[in-house]
Amino acid sequence: MTTTDTTTRFQLAEKDLPTAWYNALPDLPEPLQPPLHPGTREPVGPADLAPLFPMPLIEQEMTQAPWIDIPGPVLDILRLWRPTPLVRARRLEQALGTPARIYYKDESVSPAGSHKPNTAVAQAYYNAQAGTKRLSTETGAGQWGSALAFACAQFDLECKVYMVRASYEQKPYRRVLMETWGASVVASPVDDPNHPGSLGTAISDAVRDAATRDDTHYSLGSVLNHVLLHQTVIGLEAKEQLALAGEERPDVVVGSCGGGSNLGGIALPFMNDTRVRLVAFEPSSCPTLTSGKFEYDFGDTAGMTPLLPMYTLGHDFVPPSIHAGGLRYHGDSPIISSLVKTRRMEAVACPQSKTFEAAVQFARTEGKIPAPETGHAIRGVIDEALAAKEAGEERVILFNYSGHGFLDLAAYDDYNHGRLADE
Amino acid sequence: MTTTDTTTRFQLAEKDLPTAWYNALPDLPEPLQPPLHPGTREPVGPADLAPLFPMPLIEQEMTQAPWIDIPGPVLDILRLWRPTPLVRARRLEQALGTPARIYYKDESVSPAGSHKPNTAVAQAYYNAQAGTKRLSTETGAGQWGSALAFACAQFDLECKVYMVRASYEQKPYRRVLMETWGASVVASPVDDPNHPGSLGTAISDAVRDAATRDDTHYSLGSVLNHVLLHQTVIGLEAKEQLALAGEERPDVVVGSCGGGSNLGGIALPFMNDTRVRLVAFEPSSCPTLTSGKFEYDFGDTAGMTPLLPMYTLGHDFVPPSIHAGGLRYHGDSPIISSLVKTRRMEAVACPQSKTFEAAVQFARTEGKIPAPETGHAIRGVIDEALAAKEAGEERVILFNYSGHGFLDLAAYDDYNHGRLADE
Repeated sequence: MTTTDTTTRFQLAEKDLPTAWYNALPDLPEPLQPPLHPGTREPVGPADLAPLFPMPLIEQEMTQAPWIDIPGPVLDILRLWRPTPLVRARRLEQALGTPARIYYKDESVSPAGSHKPNTAVAQAYYNAQAGTKRLSTETGAGQWGSALAFACAQFDLECKVYMVRASYEQKPYRRVLMETWGASVVASPVDDPNHPGSLGTAISDAVRDAATRDDTHYSLGSVLNHVLLHQTVIGLEAKEQLALAGEERPDVVVGSCGGGSNLGGIALPFMNDTRVRLVAFEPSSCPTLTSGKFEYDFGDTAGMTPLLPMYTLGHDFVPPSIHAGGLRYHGDSPIISSLVKTRRMEAVACPQSKTFEAAVQFARTEGKIPAPETGHAIRGVIDEALAAKEAGEERVILFNYSGHGFLDLAAYDDYNHGRLADE
Repeated sequence: MTTTDTTTRFQLAEKDLPTAWYNALPDLPEPLQPPLHPGTREPVGPADLAPLFPMPLIEQEMTQAPWIDIPGPVLDILRLWRPTPLVRARRLEQALGTPARIYYKDESVSPAGSHKPNTAVAQAYYNAQAGTKRLSTETGAGQWGSALAFACAQFDLECKVYMVRASYEQKPYRRVLMETWGASVVASPVDDPNHPGSLGTAISDAVRDAATRDDTHYSLGSVLNHVLLHQTVIGLEAKEQLALAGEERPDVVVGSCGGGSNLGGIALPFMNDTRVRLVAFEPSSCPTLTSGKFEYDFGDTAGMTPLLPMYTLGHDFVPPSIHAGGLRYHGDSPIISSLVKTRRMEAVACPQSKTFEAAVQFARTEGKIPAPETGHAIRGVIDEALAAKEAGEERVILFNYSGHGFLDLAAYDDYNHGRLADE
């Protein structure tokens, strides 16, 4: 079916904001193996997690209920920017000369500029309800930390962010965002001012903070089941919007993949329709899904978190310093890992320079400057669209435009001037 | 009338995008005085302007036609982000405890992050139609230059931007934006690498470029009548959206004012309803409307442009280096100047620190980080809302959220840490 009108953006009304999250757990091809206690290696129970998370989030981590109602106060904040637009990338299609129809879900319109606030708001809400006064978290370049800082400001929670020292010193702008929303930001590791830090050290600092203070819980921006659950609003909205566009279903759903939350958010609601291909794009410098092993591993370098069943490069893996900081994680979401292991989802690795080439082509045709992470998805989309051209097939491609690149322009400067290293 | 529902964003369908611009010229309280030739001081005719602009823009500069059709190819690009949302700032209202209802038009959702592309796209289109191969322009911090670079990429025009050298060296990110969209950017003045530059030198460089090359026209991002004309889509959409919100009309329309294009865009379509107050907010460090003289003056420092009838601080006025770079202009749009002179529009000046205080209050309640220019409008809105509270009146306040602050975070850093000088 080819539409003859020129509609570019398919917009849902505010009343069409989803009122429940879709839970993928009961529908996975194989049941997830449980997380294990880092000390005993026995399955963890709710009580083990209670020092870190409020009970509703622990329940969401484990429940088999197919749908979870979104609380009203969460909806009240999500509607500051949701439903987000579904945009047909007509100008990119024309530039590629492809018969494919390309649609993207624009998550860059949130206050923090990415999909991250979808779960930050929910986590801040449940913590505020439980009487938590303060949240601690880690952040690399600052995407997640800024989303949580925004969310905490909405519920009058204090927010303490441990930011990887190298980013804290060299990429100050997301620190400024966090501080503007009222968060307190320190460089990690806190106990060694000469150490450049890593996501591993920052998780350790944040978990230690939460574990040792009664008024404080810990908050994580990806990987965990409840995080992917909160992100499913993306795919649920996209499904309705594709119907508005006259599309029966996407042939392929594409997302970039680091910890898995933006990909899970758009892909999980399409999981049960096996005619829809699901594809993860990851950096070839941190090829968790394509070159990692599926096994139990820690979420952090120091081995303080529960062991999760996932694809991993090893918790001591140190990825090169590529620009898509949000994709530099040694492990991956257990849900995404399970989908790849059971071959329900495909995974592809691509080098940094190819993702910037795709991002710039998108910027010059569609106008918007993508985050480097999002550039991985766009690389995948362009390759899929060219494959459709080769095959002479009208395929429908859906992807998640997970964030804008206004705070990543130094990376574009490197690319524009030939200074971008590939690995 | 108080609505009882909780709708936050009032969204028009793509088919409701305005198809004609509103021309304020025939409706002004007094006819505009004509621009004068810088040499002869006689009124300029179309032939005088032909080396710089294509004929349709020259006609739009002077026409008395009440409406001008928007060309289809311009609409095709505007619909990448238009109609923009009208948002009710409910959380800000609550924080202020005001009975006022506050609505803002969110122009930050454009690819360049501001209202500027509304006219950049139209100017690039008319130039491409006229066979122009290349556009030259000036830019201060880069808001306008990045909008024109985006627009030129859509019509395969070369784009040459003369950027004030101090910004070129100290604020590189909008230069990167421009280059990513394919523009060529150089520091101005081009003939003196030790000079920090000013908007005046950059205009001179850009005009000289266009005047001396057959393939090149000049493009200006504010002040001129045709620029304000192209921006009226903002107010035309807002009018429809206020009706959706159940509001008969705004009591007051507020905008920040530098050259006048964002304020004109939202305010002019309400000009004929004298029950609607129109208010310009400008920096007290560059108080063109509140302390300037109404007289003929040059648009640039060197005196190369026609003389315009406007409020001006003198074309050799050098404003302090405040963060709202887009508001540091010695003159003002003749249309806005005429409205202030005839008392149809009010003007208020405010100090920088008060505008950042307002911007941060907005960020913590509504989530979005405004551009420093937009902070001036928000200062005005908060003052109007507090006046309504004082009077115990349910006033309807409309303002233009002209751009986001993701590329201005250094200014927030200064404010957050007490380093912001007031003048």
